Amino acid sequence: MPQLSASEFSLVYNAFSFTFAAMFATFIFLVLSRPNVAPKYRNALTLSALVVAIAGYHYLRIFESWQAAFVVNDQGAYVASGKPFNDAYRYIDWLLTVPLLVAELVAVMTIAKGKGWLTFRLATAAALMIILGYPGEIATTLDSNGNPIVDTGARALWGLFSTVPFIYILYELFVGLGPAIQKETGEVRVLLRNIRLLLFATWGFYPIVYLIPILSGGAQMTAGVLLAVQVGYCIADVAAKCGYGIMIYAIAKAKTDAEPEAMKIGAAAAVAGD
Amino acid sequence: MPQLSASEFSLVYNAFSFTFAAMFATFIFLVLSRPNVAPKYRNALTLSALVVAIAGYHYLRIFESWQAAFVVNDQGAYVASGKPFNDAYRYIDWLLTVPLLVAELVAVMTIAKGKGWLTFRLATAAALMIILGYPGEIATTLDSNGNPIVDTGARALWGLFSTVPFIYILYELFVGLGPAIQKETGEVRVLLRNIRLLLFATWGFYPIVYLIPILSGGAQMTAGVLLAVQVGYCIADVAAKCGYGIMIYAIAKAKTDAEPEAMKIGAAAAVAGD
Repeated sequence: MPQLSASEFSLVYNAFSFTFAAMFATFIFLVLSRPNVAPKYRNALTLSALVVAIAGYHYLRIFESWQAAFVVNDQGAYVASGKPFNDAYRYIDWLLTVPLLVAELVAVMTIAKGKGWLTFRLATAAALMIILGYPGEIATTLDSNGNPIVDTGARALWGLFSTVPFIYILYELFVGLGPAIQKETGEVRVLLRNIRLLLFATWGFYPIVYLIPILSGGAQMTAGVLLAVQVGYCIADVAAKCGYGIMIYAIAKAKTDAEPEAMKIGAAAAVAGD
Repeated sequence: MPQLSASEFSLVYNAFSFTFAAMFATFIFLVLSRPNVAPKYRNALTLSALVVAIAGYHYLRIFESWQAAFVVNDQGAYVASGKPFNDAYRYIDWLLTVPLLVAELVAVMTIAKGKGWLTFRLATAAALMIILGYPGEIATTLDSNGNPIVDTGARALWGLFSTVPFIYILYELFVGLGPAIQKETGEVRVLLRNIRLLLFATWGFYPIVYLIPILSGGAQMTAGVLLAVQVGYCIADVAAKCGYGIMIYAIAKAKTDAEPEAMKIGAAAAVAGD
């Protein structure tokens, strides 16, 4: 870990705290707002709530790991404590949440048939994307002095493998789901188009971060890059999980308002504990 | 950090603990009381609950940071431990909660159209107010001995920038929302006028605290000022978040009582376990 000033350390620390707060606040919002939508859309909100709960838990862990990874030296600078900063939490988080993110989008959409099979295909592709990226993330090799450095070759290769399911997901979202989105009208159609763009924009951030060590030739991470990556991940996670979850709610609410009967149809189910 | 006596340290410590307890108690009250109001006002209570949950979390953190920032010396006095007292939590808290506070006020009001757009304008102005204040809060410069001191010039400048969106919010509340409040009758009108005054009075406290280092010419913070600021923030936060949230509930309840039909319209939602 590079040496950080007190304000650099605090910037990341505060970004983690902010992200944790955003995750649990979104969780409360989704749980409390779930009865406002028709029963058939509540499953989508349940999945959204799971995503922010899981991510909130992992941000608590990342937060603790960040604190443990540094000690303050005599000059007031933050230097590596020797304990590793455990970034692997992010992969565990993604392995659980990324398949749920695609599943919640399918759950809120009106698709005549094959909904279960589509969810399975997208969730599997999402999990594969994470699993294939991981060996590249941890791949190290030895430099001429025998010190471990990033294995840029292995990282590039596994990154490439991981891109294949990502492209498949984009294909399904932008081509496969096109007709179902076209069938919607007004606000719902606009919201579905926007959420698809949000997913594309936020998910696109992660491969860029993944590329940084390759672009820098496996060099030691500088303080600037470390800060940009960690704060960047926080912003991307808040947009991709909290922002996305609230948009899922907005879609479910707009669809409920457009079909008042849907609320009644679920009354029996709701009484039965939903 | 200035040196504190045991009772000075405890005063702030207890104020933080009190504020945390007030926040989570208000959270429980709002969640439990939510079904008492008509479904169309429940969103306002959800937002109020989020505000106190987020603030409660940040008070826990501030509390921990306060404990870590001091050690007891041989004479029983509390002296700086070297770990910074992280006041930045307040800014993170405000960044999340202040836009929600204006949003919950709009959510509980009866506004014929453009509610979403008004919420967006007010929430954006609230976020801008916080974001513009922050660079001034952390701006430091060097004194003649090379020690970091408060940069009063930068603080005044950013404080001025931050005042612009604040004035815009006051304009919307006192001029823009005037007709909507006039249309209400009896208790609801009184409550809406009072909550507007509460918002003005509590929010007005924060710029006063912001000015202290400027008025003192950037001098080291004395124990007296530190205590006044921290206890003052606690009182302002309890009024602006717990008191405000309970008034939002009172407004929603008064409106529900005035229109018994509103409760029935949401019957399906209510049956759904809400």
